[in-house]
Amino acid sequence: MIILGIAGSLRAGSYNRGLLDAAAELAPEAMEIRVWDGLRDVPHYEAALDTDERRPATVVELKRAIAAADGLLIATPEYNYSIPGVLKNAIDWASRPGYKSELVGKPAAIMGASGGAAGTARAQIHLREVMYSTLARVMPHPGLLVGGAAAKFTDGRLTDEPTRAFLVDFLGTFAAYVRQQAPR
Amino acid sequence: MIILGIAGSLRAGSYNRGLLDAAAELAPEAMEIRVWDGLRDVPHYEAALDTDERRPATVVELKRAIAAADGLLIATPEYNYSIPGVLKNAIDWASRPGYKSELVGKPAAIMGASGGAAGTARAQIHLREVMYSTLARVMPHPGLLVGGAAAKFTDGRLTDEPTRAFLVDFLGTFAAYVRQQAPR
Amino acid sequence: MIILGIAGSLRAGSYNRGLLDAAAELAPEAMEIRVWDGLRDVPHYEAALDTDERRPATVVELKRAIAAADGLLIATPEYNYSIPGVLKNAIDWASRPGYKSELVGKPAAIMGASGGAAGTARAQIHLREVMYSTLARVMPHPGLLVGGAAAKFTDGRLTDEPTRAFLVDFLGTFAAYVRQQAPR
Amino acid sequence: MIILGIAGSLRAGSYNRGLLDAAAELAPEAMEIRVWDGLRDVPHYEAALDTDERRPATVVELKRAIAAADGLLIATPEYNYSIPGVLKNAIDWASRPGYKSELVGKPAAIMGASGGAAGTARAQIHLREVMYSTLARVMPHPGLLVGGAAAKFTDGRLTDEPTRAFLVDFLGTFAAYVRQQAPR
Repeated sequence: MIILGIAGSLRAGSYNRGLLDAAAELAPEAMEIRVWDGLRDVPHYEAALDTDERRPATVVELKRAIAAADGLLIATPEYNYSIPGVLKNAIDWASRPGYKSELVGKPAAIMGASGGAAGTARAQIHLREVMYSTLARVMPHPGLLVGGAAAKFTDGRLTDEPTRAFLVDFLGTFAAYVRQQAPR
Repeated sequence: MIILGIAGSLRAGSYNRGLLDAAAELAPEAMEIRVWDGLRDVPHYEAALDTDERRPATVVELKRAIAAADGLLIATPEYNYSIPGVLKNAIDWASRPGYKSELVGKPAAIMGASGGAAGTARAQIHLREVMYSTLARVMPHPGLLVGGAAAKFTDGRLTDEPTRAFLVDFLGTFAAYVRQQAPR
Repeated sequence: MIILGIAGSLRAGSYNRGLLDAAAELAPEAMEIRVWDGLRDVPHYEAALDTDERRPATVVELKRAIAAADGLLIATPEYNYSIPGVLKNAIDWASRPGYKSELVGKPAAIMGASGGAAGTARAQIHLREVMYSTLARVMPHPGLLVGGAAAKFTDGRLTDEPTRAFLVDFLGTFAAYVRQQAPR
Repeated sequence: MIILGIAGSLRAGSYNRGLLDAAAELAPEAMEIRVWDGLRDVPHYEAALDTDERRPATVVELKRAIAAADGLLIATPEYNYSIPGVLKNAIDWASRPGYKSELVGKPAAIMGASGGAAGTARAQIHLREVMYSTLARVMPHPGLLVGGAAAKFTDGRLTDEPTRAFLVDFLGTFAAYVRQQAPR
């Protein structure tokens, strides 16, 4: 099972990149998490560029990676009670053409880490709504909200043991969800 | 009264740019709407660039334009049940530093146009929540949702008379709101 | 396939009751829609009443009806940009105990009718989020938003032919979704 | 300055009732918080009852209390990622007739307490959207989210000192907001 992992922040040493790396490390044996690193290179979405002739190479690569994956795992920070513009922009590209993109029917799981107590709860609501519109199939439960991240990461690495244990469970549940959602 | 106008789409001839241009044309005499055209040039938000030494010139310009304005008027398309990543990204820059940016206390009005019937209702919910987090003061009512835009714009220009009349009222209400929200 | 239908309004001749009745009439042969009429009788949720000894009979009936159904079909009006309190209250009861209620894993479809143009788009966002929290599995697409309802209903009956045709498609898609989500 | 306080839970000893009582105790001298206790008695909203002849006495009382207050303070639990149905129902009544109710222009502040870490962040998003639609004027900042409530309340009383101190600041900010929003 191939899972494409995307962290929604460009910050070096970001909590969400650390969370995604921890997921890649702790994934069940049957699951390989491939972290996609191209977020920074995706230009602003523009319909005039969204043609077979002009589509940026990094977008083509993203769409191929989604198509090749059995599921998506997105780690999002919270900027202004929502997801970062840079993450939304990549999803805007990936979601095209509407209702016919590589995201249709793709199982997806959402997680997020932040310094505050609410742990990206608000960003995850927006992300779920956005993913919903793409016809991806977001796992309904459990959520993974890592609040108070400053105390749970060391040098960008997730070191909090209870969170690591929860992440193991979360990924196990996601693996079962991906199997359940697969076409029969 | 100076209002900074931002259209959330990069598409040439976009409905939302046309809506904003119509607002500039129909604004009450006391209100000057200055359309900001720099959305395309704002790089992806990155904390490492968000310092006095490294902040991109276009972001500095945006923040100055916000500071100089008495209010904001944002015209947003709806991408994936939310606002475009490119618009969110500009707000992410403008909102920094958190709770102390040029957006704090700034009166703002939201409108949007789309081809579908719901006319950006979902995008406006997200935008309102995002603006709320910046401590801008979004006018609570009326909303301006232009659905079925294909029949209301001609060559990118808003030509539907009922919508133009509603826009005149909307801008008049916004002018009163801006005055009401001004520091005493 | 048994589908439990719930209309979120108490109004006699409500559009949403009419929409649900039309669904019952137009459902595919394999689908029987049973309209639940008990909304009015559900008392305000109160934890002290939510025990095996004290749980109101109407709530017990609702939970049994959910358990016996293969899926849910909810028709919601929009009150104050959200779902009616009376509908939310019934879901609050049905969702207990949290993550272990009859709603867990239950396929659900959402639709709504309103007089305005946005056709309950905002209420459906809230309802989806609420249902998501219950671990029901809301069909991601298509949505069914009936705006401008005054012209589409006659004496409480859905008479607009394009909407009726769309409803037939919607129910067919839902039937496939219910089958796809069923335990293997 | 009279503030009408509403707690969105019927549970005896509820955290949100405790939070509201603490607010009443800690309010600045110029602010009197009057706790409204009628939530339980408000029947399900029904348009047929919402006439001058048939409107329930408890609703009439609620609307009068809102009209007599300079602002509202709502303490909401989170049920299913949203506000309780019973609270939404009372707002549905209070918001009528739409755009002309006693809520129009009324300053309002939102707070909430819950056992979980996110501390009603999701419920507050919904409540803000709902209040927004009523044309009440919700204070944009700060929010007051009390997570981990089990450790912060003793016998239903808010005993956590940092939270009490934050509440004092919150109420001071709200008092200034109420004055700022008052008609000139």
